Amino acid sequence: MILVLKQDATMNAIATLIDLLKTMGVSVQEIKGGANPMLGIAGDVSAFPEDTIARNELVETILHVREPYKRAGRRFHPEDTLVTVGNAKIGAGHFAVMAGPCSVESEDQILSIARDIAGSGATFLRGGAFKPRSSPYAFPGLGLDGLELLKVARQKTGLPIVTEIMSSEHLEAFAKDVDVIQIGARNMQNFTLLREVGALGKPVLLKRGLSSTIEELLMAAEYLINGGTENIILCERGIRTFETATRNTLDLSAIPVLKQKTHLPVIADPSHGTGYWHLVEPMALAAVAAGADGLIIEVHNTPQTALCDGQQSITPEVFHHLMKKIQRVRQAINVNNRED
Amino acid sequence: MILVLKQDATMNAIATLIDLLKTMGVSVQEIKGGANPMLGIAGDVSAFPEDTIARNELVETILHVREPYKRAGRRFHPEDTLVTVGNAKIGAGHFAVMAGPCSVESEDQILSIARDIAGSGATFLRGGAFKPRSSPYAFPGLGLDGLELLKVARQKTGLPIVTEIMSSEHLEAFAKDVDVIQIGARNMQNFTLLREVGALGKPVLLKRGLSSTIEELLMAAEYLINGGTENIILCERGIRTFETATRNTLDLSAIPVLKQKTHLPVIADPSHGTGYWHLVEPMALAAVAAGADGLIIEVHNTPQTALCDGQQSITPEVFHHLMKKIQRVRQAINVNNRED
Amino acid sequence: MILVLKQDATMNAIATLIDLLKTMGVSVQEIKGGANPMLGIAGDVSAFPEDTIARNELVETILHVREPYKRAGRRFHPEDTLVTVGNAKIGAGHFAVMAGPCSVESEDQILSIARDIAGSGATFLRGGAFKPRSSPYAFPGLGLDGLELLKVARQKTGLPIVTEIMSSEHLEAFAKDVDVIQIGARNMQNFTLLREVGALGKPVLLKRGLSSTIEELLMAAEYLINGGTENIILCERGIRTFETATRNTLDLSAIPVLKQKTHLPVIADPSHGTGYWHLVEPMALAAVAAGADGLIIEVHNTPQTALCDGQQSITPEVFHHLMKKIQRVRQAINVNNRED
Amino acid sequence: MILVLKQDATMNAIATLIDLLKTMGVSVQEIKGGANPMLGIAGDVSAFPEDTIARNELVETILHVREPYKRAGRRFHPEDTLVTVGNAKIGAGHFAVMAGPCSVESEDQILSIARDIAGSGATFLRGGAFKPRSSPYAFPGLGLDGLELLKVARQKTGLPIVTEIMSSEHLEAFAKDVDVIQIGARNMQNFTLLREVGALGKPVLLKRGLSSTIEELLMAAEYLINGGTENIILCERGIRTFETATRNTLDLSAIPVLKQKTHLPVIADPSHGTGYWHLVEPMALAAVAAGADGLIIEVHNTPQTALCDGQQSITPEVFHHLMKKIQRVRQAINVNNRED
Repeated sequence: MILVLKQDATMNAIATLIDLLKTMGVSVQEIKGGANPMLGIAGDVSAFPEDTIARNELVETILHVREPYKRAGRRFHPEDTLVTVGNAKIGAGHFAVMAGPCSVESEDQILSIARDIAGSGATFLRGGAFKPRSSPYAFPGLGLDGLELLKVARQKTGLPIVTEIMSSEHLEAFAKDVDVIQIGARNMQNFTLLREVGALGKPVLLKRGLSSTIEELLMAAEYLINGGTENIILCERGIRTFETATRNTLDLSAIPVLKQKTHLPVIADPSHGTGYWHLVEPMALAAVAAGADGLIIEVHNTPQTALCDGQQSITPEVFHHLMKKIQRVRQAINVNNRED
Repeated sequence: MILVLKQDATMNAIATLIDLLKTMGVSVQEIKGGANPMLGIAGDVSAFPEDTIARNELVETILHVREPYKRAGRRFHPEDTLVTVGNAKIGAGHFAVMAGPCSVESEDQILSIARDIAGSGATFLRGGAFKPRSSPYAFPGLGLDGLELLKVARQKTGLPIVTEIMSSEHLEAFAKDVDVIQIGARNMQNFTLLREVGALGKPVLLKRGLSSTIEELLMAAEYLINGGTENIILCERGIRTFETATRNTLDLSAIPVLKQKTHLPVIADPSHGTGYWHLVEPMALAAVAAGADGLIIEVHNTPQTALCDGQQSITPEVFHHLMKKIQRVRQAINVNNRED
Repeated sequence: MILVLKQDATMNAIATLIDLLKTMGVSVQEIKGGANPMLGIAGDVSAFPEDTIARNELVETILHVREPYKRAGRRFHPEDTLVTVGNAKIGAGHFAVMAGPCSVESEDQILSIARDIAGSGATFLRGGAFKPRSSPYAFPGLGLDGLELLKVARQKTGLPIVTEIMSSEHLEAFAKDVDVIQIGARNMQNFTLLREVGALGKPVLLKRGLSSTIEELLMAAEYLINGGTENIILCERGIRTFETATRNTLDLSAIPVLKQKTHLPVIADPSHGTGYWHLVEPMALAAVAAGADGLIIEVHNTPQTALCDGQQSITPEVFHHLMKKIQRVRQAINVNNRED
Repeated sequence: MILVLKQDATMNAIATLIDLLKTMGVSVQEIKGGANPMLGIAGDVSAFPEDTIARNELVETILHVREPYKRAGRRFHPEDTLVTVGNAKIGAGHFAVMAGPCSVESEDQILSIARDIAGSGATFLRGGAFKPRSSPYAFPGLGLDGLELLKVARQKTGLPIVTEIMSSEHLEAFAKDVDVIQIGARNMQNFTLLREVGALGKPVLLKRGLSSTIEELLMAAEYLINGGTENIILCERGIRTFETATRNTLDLSAIPVLKQKTHLPVIADPSHGTGYWHLVEPMALAAVAAGADGLIIEVHNTPQTALCDGQQSITPEVFHHLMKKIQRVRQAINVNNRED
């Protein structure tokens, strides 16, 4: 961090500011030679009250050289993180697809879908037991009963289960029964929940908030790591823009940007990211081509009667063909350049 | 809600669709005379699985005539809601200012600020005990100790206290000690928390999410009302846009739009809404001129050493002058047109 | 278009409104059976003063069933448009890559790049002679001299040239010398220029505006078609969002959405769309996987000394390898499903 | 501008980079003492190829201390600019209202409105002769005939006229007949038009683009100044966001930000900024309270039959009352603090 000071700052005033800064646990270096006097701030700046210092009458502006996250970043952790759940692996060159319905609705439904997607090559079963709904009158999911049905499906298919937690009161149940705990987009900055889920030490699927920057997503991951888990899968699921032709704008450039900045695996959600089932295939393939470590896709056996998000779910048959195409695109991008 | 059907839909297929719709607890009317056949959906559509029906092969598109919220809207509740807390009133023609520091830091600090703002005419004391911080390393607030300090300040000044809840685990403490429970922008769609806080039946300050639409804000209020409280104060606090000259873009047009759509009082937060203390005065006055029922403003006695958000806090002296200007703008806009 | 009328509208008032509407050259049908009376507006609504009618005291809201564009849409022109320029083809199953420097700088530079990209399989040469720069002090391009250099490069390589027009005063020169006339993002709603360029009847590359919706892009194409050309290539080049990690947010979902709505070919610009050369490859491949009909890519032989946009240009060598990967991804997605 | 170099940059490599930079007409100073070596770039950096230098292998990042505009900024031109047109004045403490219809439709219409608004205190007549319309089929304005009608209205009322130019071909007519030439939002980055209009030396009303940052607006003003005029009025007219309850999001915080950064007068357009006539009054008053130097407001004598934008026009009677309220808010905010 560099404090650019006002051009007319006196040496005395600067010395006083330096003394103040040193009480804040950082080291301070004078930087000379520019048009303005400047101070370099180093050491542990993680708790440095930057916004307040910006208010200081000597300070013209504050410039940043480094990113604010540490353990989520590649700088101090250059090698890829591999998340392993039973036989399923994701990250560090391993690609995985999570599939399943928006909401768990019945044992027949979840078993049928789980068997179909497993047959097509998915290695995680996703399904909502607790659903965040913008209306208090909409179907909120089956709750703990839904969790039981997911467990049945896991037992029958061997697929680890991914499902969203919405409240601290279910921490114990999720710790016991869920393989990958999902933090949804609306809770990405629910810092209390991040700390608590991190403390469980289990794998987490962390979705990007609807208007969260890539840096904020990494800071949310930093909360989880700080809480106690490094087994984090990041998920781009669309951001909010002015465009109304799609439900959200799937920001696929976030994938290569994240792969550069962090060691954590990164997946994409073309179902929520677009909101329309016919956009799922092209955007799933595009995410793979952009370098994603995996995908999370809504699959429903009877989407026209689904209790939630039927408009963006694909059928098991469409999913089956998509998995083959995904495979081909993976091969296409992974050929070593030297073979050309 | 109107389902616009495909032009080539057969009468038989339409009849089958109507039967399906009727099983969903709504009434269905055929609408004739347009270029496409249409179905009008009436009755209680609050749990209607619209996104799934949109997937039906007969349906070309779905059009909405009505807003999705009910009890938060003016349609069934035309008269303004007045929120009363002790001697303080807001809404239904009553204007109120909430002021105080971003974070409670010490007894001296909060008492000094509380006395100053009370002397200038503020009628609520705001101050953070639990702080949502994007970094896990930043000052998180004093927690329950901060709540105790706020209670001391209330006792000395008589000002009711407004402070943010971040976790269900503090529901009991907030129910007992806090006058107005704040739901922050990042928790506006934490539906679990909305239900739980609503169930307390206490006044709530609900802040608009960083990328939430006005309709989503009203749906969050609907959650609170559905949970058990109608004493809700809505707060415009800036939305996220591409502009970087301000921390957020304070959407003041949300004020007259909300005043038209809902009976709930609406205030503005020019401190978070802009991020810079020198923009607080012009935007506070603008919010008043736009018809706000009140303001929430960060005031700190020594902003240059504040532990959080010092850059956007004004001093008690600046606040004092601002309160006089607010008074004058209030008078300017409230003169009856007939007196002109 | 459907006018939803107020519930308490009298039959007399409705009859008067119908008479008014009929004077506007549209046909009007009463739609009965819904909760509100409604009027269906049909016929040629292209000049219908919708915003004014929305103001009518009887009208509660206006709903749209149809898109506002006609000749750019698939409804009345279902088959793909193929744009042919000399030996180069794009659209209707033909894929093409346009490559070259941001700015033409010298004969050596443009010839060297043109030969390299032709050798790698590009079929169009792009290069800026007139450059839109946000600063009046930045390098504005070589102007007509740059055009001459592009012509030399075309003569030596046979590649048709794509370059941006910025002013009506150059219409004649572009009509004579340029193969594909580019309308840049900042001029996408320069309606005067759209009409004039359309009237030339030549192929046009139309870039999406920084904050233009997909519908507005298609309306701009409608201007060109109305002016006199149907040989239009649409280009997604990134939209403006709150994210700052990339220069723009490349909206790849616009590709399948556009392919569904319009018959015109659609390409992507991963160079401007991301702003960083190391993001060009993953986003180029992603665009191909999403179904793009082509790409436009900045290639510079010495990007570190380029006079403009060096940060987002790739070298001819990187381009060469990218072209091979593009080829492989094209094959991967084009295998017929029946072969699976 | 500060180039932050990589930590492992050798002294030799840095010396070579410094030599390269010096050939670009800037002065370079080594800045020592920070964690990374840095170079300060001073002198005339207006044409410095920053994006290309960012690509240099030694450069980690580039930091900015100064704004990129010069003559539009307060740094070298601290005193307010006063724009004078006949008897009308705006800026430097002078407040002015521009009013009139979206489109000039007939002599009766424009004369009637002009007389009404003059009677209510407006000092400029605005009215569109050339209209930018997103559809090629919508009413494009009366063109040069509209200009003639505006001249008649000016002759009868004495009000100077403000109208939008859309094409270079009308430069001569506008130079001769128009008092304040408007550059619309869609042409804010039509750099050719900016240069040409600037060269006329006449007063210009420059509207902010739909997704333009405040800095880009000031760079567009810099083009005009560089072209030849300093009589520029800036206009905030709403930006594009995700919110759909209003046509645009009127960014009123842009007013105090602009007043701080530039000497040019700043006005607001609550008609286009909101899109709804009933939001014009609250947002007009809010703009005044935020410190605007003026307003531009759509007024139509029969908005329900207006040929364009009737939904956002107010009647002369509503305008009359609004002018009185504006007066009162102006007085309320202008009382000197010392009088409190």
